[in-house]
Amino acid sequence: MSLKNPMLAHHISSQFNEDLQEVNTKFMSLGGLLEQQVADAIHALLDANITLALEVQEKENIVNRFETEIDESLTIILARRHPAAIDLRMVIAMSKANTDLERIGDESNKIASIAKELCEADGSTRGFMEARHIGNQVRVMLHEALDAFARLDAEQALRVLRADADTDREYQSATRTLMTYMIEDPRKISQVIQVLWVLRSLERIGDHARNIAEQVIYIVKGFDVRHTSIDEVEQKIHRID
Amino acid sequence: MSLKNPMLAHHISSQFNEDLQEVNTKFMSLGGLLEQQVADAIHALLDANITLALEVQEKENIVNRFETEIDESLTIILARRHPAAIDLRMVIAMSKANTDLERIGDESNKIASIAKELCEADGSTRGFMEARHIGNQVRVMLHEALDAFARLDAEQALRVLRADADTDREYQSATRTLMTYMIEDPRKISQVIQVLWVLRSLERIGDHARNIAEQVIYIVKGFDVRHTSIDEVEQKIHRID
Repeated sequence: MSLKNPMLAHHISSQFNEDLQEVNTKFMSLGGLLEQQVADAIHALLDANITLALEVQEKENIVNRFETEIDESLTIILARRHPAAIDLRMVIAMSKANTDLERIGDESNKIASIAKELCEADGSTRGFMEARHIGNQVRVMLHEALDAFARLDAEQALRVLRADADTDREYQSATRTLMTYMIEDPRKISQVIQVLWVLRSLERIGDHARNIAEQVIYIVKGFDVRHTSIDEVEQKIHRID
Repeated sequence: MSLKNPMLAHHISSQFNEDLQEVNTKFMSLGGLLEQQVADAIHALLDANITLALEVQEKENIVNRFETEIDESLTIILARRHPAAIDLRMVIAMSKANTDLERIGDESNKIASIAKELCEADGSTRGFMEARHIGNQVRVMLHEALDAFARLDAEQALRVLRADADTDREYQSATRTLMTYMIEDPRKISQVIQVLWVLRSLERIGDHARNIAEQVIYIVKGFDVRHTSIDEVEQKIHRID
């Protein structure tokens, strides 16, 4: 994934250009860090790797610092440079997506914390297959959403929206499966509930990836697709092309 | 709660003033609507009132429309009026808090949907006492956060931060109680899990209220308190006074 954004290179004011490139680079780095956090949190759970779980938790500070710095940079750009049109949309979208990235960090942290607990309990791995499956899906979604952001690719963003609808269905079906595990073996209830929380966090990570993808469409196309059906979004994107 | 914000009345440009007042009024109206949505969703559950649950779900469109309109207004203010200092912080904070309000709407909708399911199942009410208790707490938090926003009161915002720490503890304890209900009576597992989801949504609503309170401190004091301990926030607020 290229960190330099080609569509930002059109500015007359080179200082503005530099500021926007800098915050964009930081945003993409934060995105990369969170892809790693999500992957590590899932591996910590599936491989009962307590060291990896601790690493994810330690890195939360870095994520938080990034979030704060990105918001500070965006505020300075708004105050000094008065961006307009696509530049303004880029700043607003980055501000919203920055929050989503930080929330993905929160969810990774929750998964890591459950991984630690389950390592210590040394118990059943029921529901892990479902977690692996949905975990893989949302990792791909996050990667695609960030790649769409880096390349300002509305079509790729649209694919993330479609993938989120799939993930929601898979999540519904996985929670039903976990419910039957609990009914079959009530002694495992508290452990299976922990896995249920993991699935919930993964589903939330998918939602945040979709939010980021929606912001990509907003930057590129200039309209808000947040409360719009996917088919409608697709029509709108292609009508304007 | 006054809808006219006294601290916004200092502008030389009366058009700017009008724009900012207008979006502020809309933001406070959305806040009021969501206080009602949260209250109605909880009542729908506790009173098995399916009509009320349906009303909450129908009103989600209004919430979404409000969110979109507020963001549009804020973008226009940024593009045309180039706000600075406290005005810029107000615009940025409202943009972030707007997302939190809409997410509170999502969580209310989830609670309403579970209320409907449980009405139809006509089953046990185990866990409802916990839901009522935490529901009351987060309703107060949301009200206080919005009131702090309307009056730009950092002290009141600080109280919301403290209340959120309490709510998180109550939530932890309530989920443990619900876990014992499931172990005692495994036939009720699927119903108790629904109540567990309600508690989770309520806890999330509390988090969003805290986020809004953090934005109030950002507007008034000019610093970001998102990843700061409450004691540190308190020190920072009082050092500057």
